[in-house]
Amino acid sequence: MARIKREKWSKKFGEWFRKVLVNAELMDYRYPIKGCGVWLPYGFKVRSNVLQVLRNLLDATGHHEALFPLMIPETSLKKESTHVKSFEEECYWVTHGGKKQLEIKYALRPTSETAIAPMLKLWIRSHKDLPLKLYQIVNVFRYETKATRPTLRMREVSTFKEAHTSHATFEDAEAQVKEAIEIYKGYFDALGIAYRISKRPDWDKFPGALYSVAFDTVCPDGRSLQIGTVHNLGQNFSKAFEITYETEKGDQKHIWQTCYGISERGIAAMLITHGDDNGVVLPPRIAPIQVIIIPIPHKEKEKEEAIVKACKNVTARLKKMGISAEMDLRPDVTPGSKYFDWELRGVPVRIEIGPRDLENNEVTIVRRDTLERQSFNIRNIETAVKELMEKIAIDLQQKAWQWISQRIYRVNSLEEAKKLLKKRAGIVEVLWCGNPECGHKLEEEVNARVLGTPQDLEKKIDGKCVACRKKAENLLRAAIAY
Amino acid sequence: MARIKREKWSKKFGEWFRKVLVNAELMDYRYPIKGCGVWLPYGFKVRSNVLQVLRNLLDATGHHEALFPLMIPETSLKKESTHVKSFEEECYWVTHGGKKQLEIKYALRPTSETAIAPMLKLWIRSHKDLPLKLYQIVNVFRYETKATRPTLRMREVSTFKEAHTSHATFEDAEAQVKEAIEIYKGYFDALGIAYRISKRPDWDKFPGALYSVAFDTVCPDGRSLQIGTVHNLGQNFSKAFEITYETEKGDQKHIWQTCYGISERGIAAMLITHGDDNGVVLPPRIAPIQVIIIPIPHKEKEKEEAIVKACKNVTARLKKMGISAEMDLRPDVTPGSKYFDWELRGVPVRIEIGPRDLENNEVTIVRRDTLERQSFNIRNIETAVKELMEKIAIDLQQKAWQWISQRIYRVNSLEEAKKLLKKRAGIVEVLWCGNPECGHKLEEEVNARVLGTPQDLEKKIDGKCVACRKKAENLLRAAIAY
Repeated sequence: MARIKREKWSKKFGEWFRKVLVNAELMDYRYPIKGCGVWLPYGFKVRSNVLQVLRNLLDATGHHEALFPLMIPETSLKKESTHVKSFEEECYWVTHGGKKQLEIKYALRPTSETAIAPMLKLWIRSHKDLPLKLYQIVNVFRYETKATRPTLRMREVSTFKEAHTSHATFEDAEAQVKEAIEIYKGYFDALGIAYRISKRPDWDKFPGALYSVAFDTVCPDGRSLQIGTVHNLGQNFSKAFEITYETEKGDQKHIWQTCYGISERGIAAMLITHGDDNGVVLPPRIAPIQVIIIPIPHKEKEKEEAIVKACKNVTARLKKMGISAEMDLRPDVTPGSKYFDWELRGVPVRIEIGPRDLENNEVTIVRRDTLERQSFNIRNIETAVKELMEKIAIDLQQKAWQWISQRIYRVNSLEEAKKLLKKRAGIVEVLWCGNPECGHKLEEEVNARVLGTPQDLEKKIDGKCVACRKKAENLLRAAIAY
Repeated sequence: MARIKREKWSKKFGEWFRKVLVNAELMDYRYPIKGCGVWLPYGFKVRSNVLQVLRNLLDATGHHEALFPLMIPETSLKKESTHVKSFEEECYWVTHGGKKQLEIKYALRPTSETAIAPMLKLWIRSHKDLPLKLYQIVNVFRYETKATRPTLRMREVSTFKEAHTSHATFEDAEAQVKEAIEIYKGYFDALGIAYRISKRPDWDKFPGALYSVAFDTVCPDGRSLQIGTVHNLGQNFSKAFEITYETEKGDQKHIWQTCYGISERGIAAMLITHGDDNGVVLPPRIAPIQVIIIPIPHKEKEKEEAIVKACKNVTARLKKMGISAEMDLRPDVTPGSKYFDWELRGVPVRIEIGPRDLENNEVTIVRRDTLERQSFNIRNIETAVKELMEKIAIDLQQKAWQWISQRIYRVNSLEEAKKLLKKRAGIVEVLWCGNPECGHKLEEEVNARVLGTPQDLEKKIDGKCVACRKKAENLLRAAIAY
């Protein structure tokens, strides 16, 4: 792979990402339909490990995994009026079965509120059935008219985790939104992704929601990337689909709902955040291979055999500790080429064993993130590797948070905001009075996406709105968004 | 659930199955589109455990899991002429993106040969790239015109494992067919499903294959159910898609391919094989809950507390051994209702702890498959449960094989075959000369599906063809098929 220096990513980031996906054998994007890709075996394993993190977090908080059908009848999709308006223009439509035209056309799910609602109506009878917290991990479809980008903007999003919860009261739904935000924090933290949490402006919320909260990260090219969203749906869908429950007193009431979703953009963000000139860098708990062991060849057959034996021994010992360790014993490949291959694929730890190492009863350990080399006594190899992997995970996360914090700009005027966004500096934060007019003005002036008001700030804001100069108690974030 | 006695299943089997799927919280079939169902949380766990068995078998034999797009352009589907003929009438077609008509319409994959072939063409360059053994677990779609049945005949088959392999030679592909058959044996054995293996007649092979081998089981109503297929594709697809590799000598040759698939019918067959009047019966390694522990209430508070304490203690001890054990401490539910609920859901082992058990330092253990009760000393509970679960697994399998062997009939005339099939006796085997004419005659006379020639018989056959009375060295199997 032609290397692209990370310093140049502000311009060439897209090219780097597209190349690294194929070359590191993560995803092949050359499928005959634009916006559809193939998860390659190595990428599929990365994806599985990422999803396991998410499943663990959801299962531990009382969510149940289920699986709903792909096709949604137009009649269902149309029931919630705001919802359909947004999606009908973006749906793929199935119109024919064989040569026969279908009586009702079916949408390929763009999201599953309207696939799930008719079932909730059947399942939910009484307050005892609530809360009901379901999720599924499926593919969703959008007929994108914007330029598609691998894993970032797909027509088939092949990995979408969508949770759908039902509650007895508004307060319960509000508490659920908070829980979902905590779950997503845990998820992104596990992947070492830094983020900002913003309440989307009312004019950019999920269609059919009371309000939407989103996680955004910043890409190396300074654009923001939405990586997760949490919505309080209120009673919009339960009224449209007549989903009611019997209260303890015997009344019938409409349920309150939330939904929250995370797509393969989370995987993309992980690759983008940690990647470098040499390829991807995987957090140890995500890496399908955590340690790659490479023998340094030697002319003397006897020494060579001793080296291979030591490699096998180290591999076995690490595996016994539950570490995913593999040897690269390919005969006709130089150590340098092996380093190249495994760096490209982001294996967190490399162990080299050569004649000198053996003499000193040592191994050489190279960490993927910094490429630092260090010698360790072979006797303590398990502890050394475990500790190193923990350190790598922490360092990756810290670096990501440091990086994003340098790309958040608090500014006092529209001009400053405009200037920063024009050069793709990251996310700008401006003081805002709360008036949508002023928000729209910002959006137009800076020609960017308004990400919304911070949900992750402790301090109270006090000042003047950048648009109208009236009293402002909010911030509004904006960025050039993917 | 209104109970339907297993003796009556020959007539009411369909009704039993449909009810048990919903009542045991496995699948809800009341989705607004016919032939599409929802995997409920409990069913989803069963499905995950079944798929884990399959993944383990495939991963251990050098298969790599991947994920290909859902939509296949009509232009790809049309490349292999036999293939498309069979599928174009059965496909769901996506014709519109939003309001715009697509230039090329897309099929929802009925199977993925033509989704994978264009990628193989990109990936396979040299003999070093072979063999390449891939699989994916996805949903597939058929616009069924026959009556749909939950998990047996769906329009969205939500669980389809399809393997696709590429080889350098015909012999390698033949060896792969054999390996696939062994993998599938291992899979069905793990689920305790009995089967017959037949090479499908030439007129009923997979469209685009050289030949097809299928696994069939027999349902309680005497119908056969195809539960797995293995195909040698020869070079049909590699020639249509121009997939070639460079041999060691430097020639370009077309690859040889196989594919083999297993759908959620495997899960269905497991439920059907072991189920009884009280609900489903799950093999221990598949059961999401392997042991349910139920306290028998007592009027005296002190004794009641001692019982609950003992239940907690037993649960913790079993969990420590890696057994999935849960307590049912619902306060206002009688033990009888609890038994009913967990029998319906097929939990393999029930442990009851009452005052008398405690006095004797015992627990009562009830196995789901036979409903036999037995007392065990509480001290050896881990061993007792482990041994019992092993026994249940073996007994379920043996019972299934015994049952099917009683439904295979070797007969010497078309009349006998006809008579047996008319009363849905199971699978009939007749002597056959090998002439397709005679096969068709059988098919017409008995009005059944010809399953093909046995691949699981040791003994050589010698006799006269039931149709033409000429020398016969083959058997031909037939059954009323689902």
